[in-house]
Amino acid sequence: MSADTEQYLVKQEPYYQPQEDEIELYEAAYAERLPVMIKGPTGCGKSRFVEHMAWRLGKPLITVACNEDMTASDLVGRYLLDSEGTRWLDGPLTVAARIGAICYLDEVVEARQDTTVVIHPLTDHRRTLPLDKKGEVLDAHENFQLVISYNPGYQSLMKDLKQSTKQRFSALDFDYAPSALEASIIAKETGIDEEKATRLVKIGETARNLKGHGLDEGISTRLLVYAARLVKRGIKPRAACRMALVRPITDDKDIVATLDHAIEAVFG
Amino acid sequence: MSADTEQYLVKQEPYYQPQEDEIELYEAAYAERLPVMIKGPTGCGKSRFVEHMAWRLGKPLITVACNEDMTASDLVGRYLLDSEGTRWLDGPLTVAARIGAICYLDEVVEARQDTTVVIHPLTDHRRTLPLDKKGEVLDAHENFQLVISYNPGYQSLMKDLKQSTKQRFSALDFDYAPSALEASIIAKETGIDEEKATRLVKIGETARNLKGHGLDEGISTRLLVYAARLVKRGIKPRAACRMALVRPITDDKDIVATLDHAIEAVFG
Amino acid sequence: MSADTEQYLVKQEPYYQPQEDEIELYEAAYAERLPVMIKGPTGCGKSRFVEHMAWRLGKPLITVACNEDMTASDLVGRYLLDSEGTRWLDGPLTVAARIGAICYLDEVVEARQDTTVVIHPLTDHRRTLPLDKKGEVLDAHENFQLVISYNPGYQSLMKDLKQSTKQRFSALDFDYAPSALEASIIAKETGIDEEKATRLVKIGETARNLKGHGLDEGISTRLLVYAARLVKRGIKPRAACRMALVRPITDDKDIVATLDHAIEAVFG
Amino acid sequence: MSADTEQYLVKQEPYYQPQEDEIELYEAAYAERLPVMIKGPTGCGKSRFVEHMAWRLGKPLITVACNEDMTASDLVGRYLLDSEGTRWLDGPLTVAARIGAICYLDEVVEARQDTTVVIHPLTDHRRTLPLDKKGEVLDAHENFQLVISYNPGYQSLMKDLKQSTKQRFSALDFDYAPSALEASIIAKETGIDEEKATRLVKIGETARNLKGHGLDEGISTRLLVYAARLVKRGIKPRAACRMALVRPITDDKDIVATLDHAIEAVFG
Amino acid sequence: MSADTEQYLVKQEPYYQPQEDEIELYEAAYAERLPVMIKGPTGCGKSRFVEHMAWRLGKPLITVACNEDMTASDLVGRYLLDSEGTRWLDGPLTVAARIGAICYLDEVVEARQDTTVVIHPLTDHRRTLPLDKKGEVLDAHENFQLVISYNPGYQSLMKDLKQSTKQRFSALDFDYAPSALEASIIAKETGIDEEKATRLVKIGETARNLKGHGLDEGISTRLLVYAARLVKRGIKPRAACRMALVRPITDDKDIVATLDHAIEAVFG
Amino acid sequence: MSADTEQYLVKQEPYYQPQEDEIELYEAAYAERLPVMIKGPTGCGKSRFVEHMAWRLGKPLITVACNEDMTASDLVGRYLLDSEGTRWLDGPLTVAARIGAICYLDEVVEARQDTTVVIHPLTDHRRTLPLDKKGEVLDAHENFQLVISYNPGYQSLMKDLKQSTKQRFSALDFDYAPSALEASIIAKETGIDEEKATRLVKIGETARNLKGHGLDEGISTRLLVYAARLVKRGIKPRAACRMALVRPITDDKDIVATLDHAIEAVFG
Repeated sequence: MSADTEQYLVKQEPYYQPQEDEIELYEAAYAERLPVMIKGPTGCGKSRFVEHMAWRLGKPLITVACNEDMTASDLVGRYLLDSEGTRWLDGPLTVAARIGAICYLDEVVEARQDTTVVIHPLTDHRRTLPLDKKGEVLDAHENFQLVISYNPGYQSLMKDLKQSTKQRFSALDFDYAPSALEASIIAKETGIDEEKATRLVKIGETARNLKGHGLDEGISTRLLVYAARLVKRGIKPRAACRMALVRPITDDKDIVATLDHAIEAVFG
Repeated sequence: MSADTEQYLVKQEPYYQPQEDEIELYEAAYAERLPVMIKGPTGCGKSRFVEHMAWRLGKPLITVACNEDMTASDLVGRYLLDSEGTRWLDGPLTVAARIGAICYLDEVVEARQDTTVVIHPLTDHRRTLPLDKKGEVLDAHENFQLVISYNPGYQSLMKDLKQSTKQRFSALDFDYAPSALEASIIAKETGIDEEKATRLVKIGETARNLKGHGLDEGISTRLLVYAARLVKRGIKPRAACRMALVRPITDDKDIVATLDHAIEAVFG
Repeated sequence: MSADTEQYLVKQEPYYQPQEDEIELYEAAYAERLPVMIKGPTGCGKSRFVEHMAWRLGKPLITVACNEDMTASDLVGRYLLDSEGTRWLDGPLTVAARIGAICYLDEVVEARQDTTVVIHPLTDHRRTLPLDKKGEVLDAHENFQLVISYNPGYQSLMKDLKQSTKQRFSALDFDYAPSALEASIIAKETGIDEEKATRLVKIGETARNLKGHGLDEGISTRLLVYAARLVKRGIKPRAACRMALVRPITDDKDIVATLDHAIEAVFG
Repeated sequence: MSADTEQYLVKQEPYYQPQEDEIELYEAAYAERLPVMIKGPTGCGKSRFVEHMAWRLGKPLITVACNEDMTASDLVGRYLLDSEGTRWLDGPLTVAARIGAICYLDEVVEARQDTTVVIHPLTDHRRTLPLDKKGEVLDAHENFQLVISYNPGYQSLMKDLKQSTKQRFSALDFDYAPSALEASIIAKETGIDEEKATRLVKIGETARNLKGHGLDEGISTRLLVYAARLVKRGIKPRAACRMALVRPITDDKDIVATLDHAIEAVFG
Repeated sequence: MSADTEQYLVKQEPYYQPQEDEIELYEAAYAERLPVMIKGPTGCGKSRFVEHMAWRLGKPLITVACNEDMTASDLVGRYLLDSEGTRWLDGPLTVAARIGAICYLDEVVEARQDTTVVIHPLTDHRRTLPLDKKGEVLDAHENFQLVISYNPGYQSLMKDLKQSTKQRFSALDFDYAPSALEASIIAKETGIDEEKATRLVKIGETARNLKGHGLDEGISTRLLVYAARLVKRGIKPRAACRMALVRPITDDKDIVATLDHAIEAVFG
Repeated sequence: MSADTEQYLVKQEPYYQPQEDEIELYEAAYAERLPVMIKGPTGCGKSRFVEHMAWRLGKPLITVACNEDMTASDLVGRYLLDSEGTRWLDGPLTVAARIGAICYLDEVVEARQDTTVVIHPLTDHRRTLPLDKKGEVLDAHENFQLVISYNPGYQSLMKDLKQSTKQRFSALDFDYAPSALEASIIAKETGIDEEKATRLVKIGETARNLKGHGLDEGISTRLLVYAARLVKRGIKPRAACRMALVRPITDDKDIVATLDHAIEAVFG
């Protein structure tokens, strides 16, 4: 990645509605440059919050969506072959450490161990990143901070962060917004009226109550926004709900019937 | 892939017979650029529908048949070694995001996680594709849309989309067409008479009823069309049915006997 | 592979003795360019039949013996490094699609999924082969046809074609020839007298009856031909049978004894 | 890595409070150049101790955070492609052996076997490192010493050092500091008053008693320091404790409740 | 490999003592160019027999020791990078097919499937080897023959040749020589007197009777020769037997005691 | 590796105290160039013995510490890319075969199969090493001998040498020296008095009796030497024993207590 700081700045304020004291806590953690772990279910606004804080602090933000095939080199950098021979290319973590960005590793638990271990020296008193292959020990920029997201509902015996990694982070719990707040968020984001938004949230709540009883996850705020946007485009609420809220999250016929029934009840 | 938009346009209207309100729903989703998941069994016309919509919307279409050995680089792009050194080559997803095509990932559930995670930033408010290895964050063209197909009959504990992926899509359910419609589709596509087409559909229905009772999948519309084309070439209906409808889908002698019996009953 | 059509033509008529209407059915499938799946046990003449049909139709034939370490690139092609930089080399499937050959994937079920998925767009109305790495979507030559072989006795839960692959093929069942026909095939191929050939076939039948009762497969026609050739070279029938029919197919002492006994009975 | 000794020297005395005779023991081991294994739980100060000893002995220190995807080449070195052809690049272990540094392999048990076996000839009377790929047998510098860390709480049947590796090391046991000492460490490091530090240590002790009863590890000294720094920034102690001590280490609701209760009791 | 035929000729007659009609059978198989599978336990002389036959027929012999990490490219050949770009290097199988050598794949069952499948077109009426990556279909030299070895005692469910591979071979059973013959072989090879050789063979027989009762394999003729050579060098028979016959084949203390006891009985 | 014989000679006599007739047996085996397998527990002096024999015979010695990630190429050699194109680099086994060294593969059972199979042609009458990738069949130098070490306590069903490998070796059993001899070895190597050395050996015996009752391996002679060196540096015997004998080999609290108790009893 190139080290052009400008392109990593969040130009417009991302809409974010605080739920508790998370902004204050994050600001204190950033002031101390403590690494932060954002915990919570799919689509509850973890990434949005990080973007909002980057905007609020006026710091560049570099986001990496982690996955199990990602290697340490994908984060740190590698040599590329060139007409002049090999040329070093910084990875996103290295760029962030150089330019003093907030580096956000989304769903870090999916990554392989070499990816998570590579952040260790950046998350203790050393604040360094050894680029072994380049023969350089990079001292992180004073503005650099590491943030990771983590979905507790996903973890299994097979996939979890090691304690020696966890104990390098402070942590904030996130969850879906309370009903009234969530409805107002949906209305504000899509322009549908509050009353329709409230009905959508009700369907969301039905699904969230099914979590652990046939559903792995409830319906995220993002999907409620999808439904609202389809309604805004003229699709009937019931069809919009089926398309945006039910079909994406389950193939189970009983669950589909239960949710379709809830839709009938709310919009019938 | 090259970025020559022209070659990705669907030049002729692909024959498509709507079953419900799926065209209207898709058009609304496209208007909002919502990612769409097309769900349904093998050979029921999912790919045909996407081609039809691309033609109807006049947008280029780039299709990728996913598989478990596909990597993120296969989608996003990679450096090739050249006489001038390394040269970047956009992958199909990147080309689609650049030129504003509909990108259709067929059977996405077969792909490895790094392939599915790579689509995340393209499927939320960011609509970006980070080309980490190139040092570029690509903003998707305003016409770009992502579509995936998904066969619920296939999913297992081992292979399923993560909820954090599913919850980025709106979804449409597909199934085989009702008998009369399917017969008329077959007649129109192959030129055999409606009466013979109706008989073929009857055999298809027999097989679909065996799904879960010895067959993993029923007989697809595509295989019924194969049988019709063999008949049209002068092959006896019974031989054509055995060759196109029965032998491809099962090795089980009892199921073969049952289906051969059904063929006798219908064409005997 | 090079695109020199001439070298892929079958120059001499491969000896083939039809058993039923398979030639007529194959010709109709070829006329419609339907993909064909040839099903049957080891060594019953599947490959010979495909060669015969290629000769009869006067079309070039490209055969690929599939295996579990074969990749999609092995079929489609890859870049080679050259003094001038990278150079694209078409794989056998691409060559076949370009020059209009029959492409025969032998034991396709052994291949990895990326190999089988790559044939999907060649086996529906599109008849295209996307060469993603080359940035080319190849339209198959009008004479191109895809043929695969498949041994139902082998399939297990772990290794089977996906239904979405199977449902792209018409299929023909093959089996060992009936006794009299098989004896005449052996006599014609090796020059031994019909009477000895008939005795060999009897031993083959004994072994085929043991299939599923200690033998995974019966004795193939190919092994019977081996035995006949050893006899023709002056080896005693009993020694020839032990060497060509029994030792290759089993290590089980009881089965060996049973088969040796059958040899004694027939040639004693 | 480059062989510039200067950059590996620990310039400032790392704050370290000895607990027993570990400094004397380490100095004797270093005098004999015995390899040393530092055993103890996460975040109890193992790495800090090694840095302190390197500073005290005035020797350069090279630290490698091991992980399961690390290869022997990552430690020993590799050839890089250059405009002049291939060029050898020493790995961190080789650099340490050349310049006479203390080489500290952190969490060595995570590494693959080829990584651990490579240290064998450096840890017996030979004190050599064969660079097989370079055709060089490197005699270690007389100041070179190997140190590894090891967390006994982590080991499982799947992941443990081989006895033939263990029996090449002398070993020192580490644990969290006793309460009074730990409180004084926290106060000195963060500037909060001893009384608040003592309360934080009390919460740490509660958590450490839960180890094996719902917690894999207790709260490390590092996390107690995090909490103190948040308090110092003006965050209420209860919020600081929740963020720095509880949320990072567990997702279990009962454990969270128990720990939150302990926080109330101490700071309520 | 280079195609210099001379270096593959067996210059001196390898000592071989026929046990039955195996030479006559092999010669007939070679005359017909039938592929041959040599079956038998470890160290009974399978490789020696093949060398002897190559010498007797005056044909070059190319031996490949197969293993589970061997790839098809290791057999067939690959491109090497050169100052002029890539250069093709024939593998041992390709060299054998070009120059008309006997190609002996030792312990072929250890190889991966792509290695075994690659021999298919060389073992039926085609006698061709497709060099896919080179764009060449190689017609085997008329003298080329394929021979594989196979140890029935080793096979498991996990590792066995596929029937479609087995049914391409004629097969010969091998076993240890009968006592008198084996003693005379040992005496002739090492120069010890027949009486001592006979005693060694007795110990070998004791061990072979333990096969399946604590030993995976009996003592091979090769090990008996080792013991004889040590005796010839002046080592006491009992020490020689312990070193050459017992310690190499088992770690089980009871089996060791049983065999040591047998040695005492024979040489006491 | 380079073929400079001089650097592989053992310049000084490695201290070695024979236990039985192992020197005489090894010399006879070397005279016959029989491959030798050295069996015994960790740290009992297997490597030291091989070094001693190399010194005694005046032959160069090349040692390779095997591991499960080592490939055949690591032993045999590979092509490196150079400014002039590819250049072949002999591996350690090839160098040994060329210059007539003793090649010692330490812990060969850890290596992958392709590594063990590659030694087959070097360990029978052929004494050749096929360098397939280089197109060379290397005849081993007349002084070349292959030696492997093997720890019977380690072997499991998953990891064992194949019988076809074992039966290529003669074998010598090793074990820890008897008490008096071991004490005198320790005293001579470290300079502590015999009385203290005898006490250390007593602790070692306690631990060796625990083998199989909570310890995987006893305390090796090497660790006893470590303890003696710490004592020599002024560390109290009890502290030295805890650091050098107990902490390295176990994490089990009961075993630690038992051993600490034994230390008290001996040095209390």
